[in-house]
Amino acid sequence: MNSLLSQFGKKVRKQRESKNLSQEELADLSGLHRTYISSLERGHRNVSLVNIYRLAKALECDLNEFFNKIIK
Amino acid sequence: MNSLLSQFGKKVRKQRESKNLSQEELADLSGLHRTYISSLERGHRNVSLVNIYRLAKALECDLNEFFNKIIK
Repeated sequence: MNSLLSQFGKKVRKQRESKNLSQEELADLSGLHRTYISSLERGHRNVSLVNIYRLAKALECDLNEFFNKIIK
Repeated sequence: MNSLLSQFGKKVRKQRESKNLSQEELADLSGLHRTYISSLERGHRNVSLVNIYRLAKALECDLNEFFNKIIK
């Protein structure tokens, strides 16, 4: 399951970088803490549905592709 | 956010029923507890990524459509 969390973290980081956002900016946009974002991007957090939603909204995106890939 | 959790719970219930699985059977398949499934289907749980993954595997499905809908 660690690899699932890592994959998710990488996906968030990629999406954040593609929008030229710092971790701090993403934290502000999503209402999450910067250290939480940092830890999540390293795959250290078993992120909840509510936080997945906050991140997706903040990244105006497309974590769909992530779920399309993992959930078959 | 409660509506997000409710929506997710309904989606899981619908998918479970479409496969003619009882909550107990889904619990066995996913490695989660039956009372957790019950509570989750009523939108009372802020389900984690690891558990979303377990449910999706157990339901051999398609929670994609769920994420496609909520995440834009």
